[in-house]
Amino acid sequence: MLSPAIETALSRIAALNPTLHAFTAHDPALVAARAASAGQGPLANVALAIKDIIDSFDYPTRYGSPIYAHHRPSSDAAAVSQLAAAGAVAMGKTVTTEFAFFHPGPTRNPYGANHTPGGSSSGSAVAVATGMADLALGSQTAASITRPASYCGVVGFKPSFGAYSLQGVKGLAPSFDTLGTLARDVAMIARAHFVLSAPAPRAAILESRAPRRIGVCRTPWWSSASPAMQQTLLSTAQKLAEGTEVEEIGLEAFAEGADLHARIMSFEAAMALASEWRNARGQISTKLAALIETGRAMSYDDYRNALASAAALRERAESLWSRCDLLLAPAAPGAAPAGIEATGDPIFSRLWTLLRLPTLTLCAGTDAAGLPLGVQLLGRLNGDEALLSRALWVESLLPPRPEPALDH
Amino acid sequence: MLSPAIETALSRIAALNPTLHAFTAHDPALVAARAASAGQGPLANVALAIKDIIDSFDYPTRYGSPIYAHHRPSSDAAAVSQLAAAGAVAMGKTVTTEFAFFHPGPTRNPYGANHTPGGSSSGSAVAVATGMADLALGSQTAASITRPASYCGVVGFKPSFGAYSLQGVKGLAPSFDTLGTLARDVAMIARAHFVLSAPAPRAAILESRAPRRIGVCRTPWWSSASPAMQQTLLSTAQKLAEGTEVEEIGLEAFAEGADLHARIMSFEAAMALASEWRNARGQISTKLAALIETGRAMSYDDYRNALASAAALRERAESLWSRCDLLLAPAAPGAAPAGIEATGDPIFSRLWTLLRLPTLTLCAGTDAAGLPLGVQLLGRLNGDEALLSRALWVESLLPPRPEPALDH
Repeated sequence: MLSPAIETALSRIAALNPTLHAFTAHDPALVAARAASAGQGPLANVALAIKDIIDSFDYPTRYGSPIYAHHRPSSDAAAVSQLAAAGAVAMGKTVTTEFAFFHPGPTRNPYGANHTPGGSSSGSAVAVATGMADLALGSQTAASITRPASYCGVVGFKPSFGAYSLQGVKGLAPSFDTLGTLARDVAMIARAHFVLSAPAPRAAILESRAPRRIGVCRTPWWSSASPAMQQTLLSTAQKLAEGTEVEEIGLEAFAEGADLHARIMSFEAAMALASEWRNARGQISTKLAALIETGRAMSYDDYRNALASAAALRERAESLWSRCDLLLAPAAPGAAPAGIEATGDPIFSRLWTLLRLPTLTLCAGTDAAGLPLGVQLLGRLNGDEALLSRALWVESLLPPRPEPALDH
Repeated sequence: MLSPAIETALSRIAALNPTLHAFTAHDPALVAARAASAGQGPLANVALAIKDIIDSFDYPTRYGSPIYAHHRPSSDAAAVSQLAAAGAVAMGKTVTTEFAFFHPGPTRNPYGANHTPGGSSSGSAVAVATGMADLALGSQTAASITRPASYCGVVGFKPSFGAYSLQGVKGLAPSFDTLGTLARDVAMIARAHFVLSAPAPRAAILESRAPRRIGVCRTPWWSSASPAMQQTLLSTAQKLAEGTEVEEIGLEAFAEGADLHARIMSFEAAMALASEWRNARGQISTKLAALIETGRAMSYDDYRNALASAAALRERAESLWSRCDLLLAPAAPGAAPAGIEATGDPIFSRLWTLLRLPTLTLCAGTDAAGLPLGVQLLGRLNGDEALLSRALWVESLLPPRPEPALDH
């Protein structure tokens, strides 16, 4: 006997997945089996979607690459087991870009079928946006949770670097790879956080808490933001100023962070994908091959110097928290770009991922075409629960997230 | 046509493995195939042994656990591909303890068949000690390279945390897990370092360099060291004092490091092994189950506080380098204990692994029974090449490593 919540998710998948392509593997019989064996914990009857760079025993795990077309893991990723033990029911695997880099899958944006859902957690964002799942696992090395969350009008949470287990998650750049979650509201993100951040689920209740002072960051990449995004960020700041103190914070001292991130990522990705590069180069996309070539051409000293500069920026970032206890920034340059052959620009996430800060994306409005526009909230490193508390408060002041028309 | 080096290793395996049980999977036909496809790089014709928590396409990868008796990875670990591209020839997979924790495999110490080889990189240490391989991959979360290297009279190198790719390596505690190497001399360790530390092999030559001043650490665990180990450490320090300055350095301020390491490891192992705990608990050893139970019972706040204390100790460790540029410490409490049902005490490695420092173990003598006694050299975080240079110098002053009698 399936719960109504799981039945609803199943019917959404049946109705919507053939056009939106959020799931790359899904089997109603396996869903029923998982529902029968799920634990009775804090996530009982939560329909879960699993990004397909995360191992699951039930389904193939293809990492978005033809190299792994027939790959069957021997076990679930640790996070999959943690969620299942807490009661969540896996609905299947969701589309990822190739190895969580830029080469896209077939997923379409539910707010506009000719627009990208963003990447790399493409299918996870669409699954929760449309009710095919209530909670999804995603991962971020550059902007892979924040950007699809922004483009698809959902909540995306990348916790502090290292907060959740990466066991059974295909790696891309170990300095940055972070497992995270997507959902339709902050409360679900918080419920999952108390399960994923410790070996045994924690009995914890998260209360909404107003930040003392919000630092609004136009960031050094402000000119890359669309007028609609600029306006959304500033009007959101204005709205929040009715409830707490708000000041603008310049990040000129952090401008090199985006470039440092890109360079470290290329070197580390070239190492992490050494096996695929040696054994299956012909099946690597041109976008990913270019990243690997860049990394292989980078000198070791350049890499070590970039790591040292990154560590210095992380130390400098500590000073931000003397001025505020929450940062607000654009989640992406704007709404989802047209076309599904690219997943958009990660520029508004590179610095934050380099700094390893927890970041939560919320939908703050839509553009003229009805496409969602997200803002991200950032907290102090390892201050994940404080960030979630403040996100509950911010969420309560924002307009309700727009429902996708789903007129496919 | 196999090279003489590979032929030699093959004949050693045929002669010795049936009694020493270093390899858990080995196939001469696969060795020949790998030799034919190996790259012509800086490790050409080097016979390589791969610890069996590291994925390889050719063989089952069992992680030392019956849960994975039939596990076949879809691809090689990144490090395996890096080494193969540089010319190394994989001879097979070597015995590891269960998931690189304490439950031992069947491997015997070549210096005394009734003694443990140490763990968890048990088979890798024995393979290089006996010429079944010239280079071996190992990994360390507590003492898993340092201790078997000490017990088996070989060189063991755990680089700085994060130096080599962990892609395709089963994780145990992500704050500490580090891939490393074992060999019979420092020169081979250095050759492998220039291959494993970057996506493309580096053309680099390492020269022997005398340290300016060596800090000798009895450590807070000195009373746990056997008289033979105490004497070996002090006589080694005395010998090195003929060539450079030497002073004793107290580590009282770091005494909590060992306990912090054990606690963080239990929490993280319980998360990393969440899938095995949920799905195959009956096949987990009592030793590992106890670790997981400890981790599951630990409070989240205790864990975060332990991480913060560990970070503070790492910062404090920086001050050590104003007094010296190399540390010398016992590699283990003494020679390999009798019996193969336990792999020995990791106490002399926990602090160093917590601090994430690069460490290199060298054989510095033998006890009355002819069992090897190792000392470890420690360098500054990310100063791996400086450590290797100084290790070349130290090695040149030590007695030649004793050959095992192999009278099985």
